[in-house]
Amino acid sequence: MARYSPSVQNLISRLGALPGIGGKSAQRLAFHILSMPDEDATALVESITEARRLTVRCSCCQNFTDSNPCPICSDPTRDKSVVCVVESPRDVAALERMHEYKGLYHVLHGVYNPISGKGISDIALPQLFDRLSANAEIKEVIMATNQSVEGNATALYVSRLLAPSGIKVTRIASGLPMGADIEYADDLTLANALKGRVNISS
Amino acid sequence: MARYSPSVQNLISRLGALPGIGGKSAQRLAFHILSMPDEDATALVESITEARRLTVRCSCCQNFTDSNPCPICSDPTRDKSVVCVVESPRDVAALERMHEYKGLYHVLHGVYNPISGKGISDIALPQLFDRLSANAEIKEVIMATNQSVEGNATALYVSRLLAPSGIKVTRIASGLPMGADIEYADDLTLANALKGRVNISS
Repeated sequence: MARYSPSVQNLISRLGALPGIGGKSAQRLAFHILSMPDEDATALVESITEARRLTVRCSCCQNFTDSNPCPICSDPTRDKSVVCVVESPRDVAALERMHEYKGLYHVLHGVYNPISGKGISDIALPQLFDRLSANAEIKEVIMATNQSVEGNATALYVSRLLAPSGIKVTRIASGLPMGADIEYADDLTLANALKGRVNISS
Repeated sequence: MARYSPSVQNLISRLGALPGIGGKSAQRLAFHILSMPDEDATALVESITEARRLTVRCSCCQNFTDSNPCPICSDPTRDKSVVCVVESPRDVAALERMHEYKGLYHVLHGVYNPISGKGISDIALPQLFDRLSANAEIKEVIMATNQSVEGNATALYVSRLLAPSGIKVTRIASGLPMGADIEYADDLTLANALKGRVNISS
């Protein structure tokens, strides 16, 4: 005898296929969804379909938006000479929270990772190169991909490809985060912090 | 400026309202859902609506089922003299996994918890009492609610209410789980293990 009815089992496996949701969480979520009042369940389903219906990729920066171009790309006060390249829309949100950066963004929706089948054209790199050749005012590309093997490879790939163009390519600093103890830092972080040391002599 | 568009923000807050899903997970899930292929998104939405459409509470044991009465209640080989009372359908699944228990179940869908507004009639206790008075063959009620203050209170409540009826009410044992070290056990568990000690002298 199946542990749950087929429709419940199907709901559990669909929820379990979402990132970060294991078997136990999927069961817990499924029974929560089954116990929800009708209006909450309808609102949940509609939030999914509506967000998908209304959301498009910005034709300029590829970020998710409901107006094209997105509010950042169409903001006349932003500095159009700098483009910060990130992996995901959540990275844009994190950088915007800081209220320091006034340039534009480009969202790759992934990183170059040939092992897991993510090639150059599977992420928004072709769109980046098209954008750079169409917009001569862009002087600097900041590679703000994650500090991972793939994030670094993507940054390196872009810097090599843009070398002849004269566009400056920079990489966000790698080092010890604020509040970190040198004693507990991992070797790679410590090596990067040493290699990237800056002059503070006055 | 809002960090995300209204429809995405709505999706994030709907996902964040689910149990065990915090702010960061909700964002991660939302962008995963936005990036899904159309067929996967449709399948997810349909799994929710279908599971809710097909699933009813068994009129006998109150467990979620797509056939009423549920497969366990309508199984002629089960022992109809014992009813095991649990908090959730997941508890039934856990007990069934054991392949030891051959009696019936009763799912409360919660525990008696007046502080959080869960009264006697907010959980399936009235249905339990109706069921017990309608089925004279039930001789024992096993209270398998969780080992929590609320789980114990619910078990006590049922045992007091059934005292005049002559139905035996038992409580699952509380003690040290298999593999546990006495050294690391908490005081309450250790106290329960001592109090519930069984005679092994031959």
